[in-house]
Amino acid sequence: MKGVILTQTLFRYNWQIRDEWFEWCKCLSEEELMKPRTGGVGSILKTLFHIVDVEYSWVCHIQGKSEFEEPYEHYNSLEKVIGLSQQFHFEVENYLQTLTTEMEDIIVPTERGDGSIQDFTVGEILRHVIAHEIHHVGQIIGLGKRIEQSPHFS
Amino acid sequence: MKGVILTQTLFRYNWQIRDEWFEWCKCLSEEELMKPRTGGVGSILKTLFHIVDVEYSWVCHIQGKSEFEEPYEHYNSLEKVIGLSQQFHFEVENYLQTLTTEMEDIIVPTERGDGSIQDFTVGEILRHVIAHEIHHVGQIIGLGKRIEQSPHFS
Repeated sequence: MKGVILTQTLFRYNWQIRDEWFEWCKCLSEEELMKPRTGGVGSILKTLFHIVDVEYSWVCHIQGKSEFEEPYEHYNSLEKVIGLSQQFHFEVENYLQTLTTEMEDIIVPTERGDGSIQDFTVGEILRHVIAHEIHHVGQIIGLGKRIEQSPHFS
Repeated sequence: MKGVILTQTLFRYNWQIRDEWFEWCKCLSEEELMKPRTGGVGSILKTLFHIVDVEYSWVCHIQGKSEFEEPYEHYNSLEKVIGLSQQFHFEVENYLQTLTTEMEDIIVPTERGDGSIQDFTVGEILRHVIAHEIHHVGQIIGLGKRIEQSPHFS
């Protein structure tokens, strides 16, 4: 028994769950998918885009690459968000395959909202990214339950 | 940003995902649910029972309580496994609410299959339980995809 859950394991778990939600979304009308909602960061689609965007941007940041800055408006269909997720998944998986325990301790200076710089380790950032997706998936689960209970859902 | 994912967060994430699978299982025939399969520990229902059983047994073990030893045969319907999961969930949640960072370092002597005793910390055991469910959910996701692609699935 190993008492450690590898960062990679949790990323892959999140991706599996995310793909299940993409499948579920295929059964929704565009209206349900794009409807502004109070749980999440707007609509279901926008929440999924946000998860994909934030994961990739942090992984770019760790590697000193320029972050993803395209707006949601360029990806405002389920097909496009799924395509983006697959493209980024490929790159993030490649990065994770190079990740070692030692690398998780590397310091990454990070600019905060107020312009100040704060140091985080690679491990801290990756665990933040995992928890970020878990948080938003929780919101989508809540929305999913409400939709499936609604009289319009078949 | 906190660089730590709380053990409790991952337990609750697993429970949310587990409940989604229970919902999905409600759409399956008893035959699909109980069919012996090569991924997982037998059938889908048996895999879900195994997840519920193992989680609760370890949490009992940590607390020095007697473990759950009833066989799958007593819980061979979706309704019963869901009921067991809810009952155990309640007890495990109560335990997790008492859990502190210091408690995660407590040593728990554990009897292994060969009769020898090995020491694990509470944290190691809890992370093993989380990874155990992640592992089996991965199998169920794989089985789910195969079933949904099968011509008999509506």
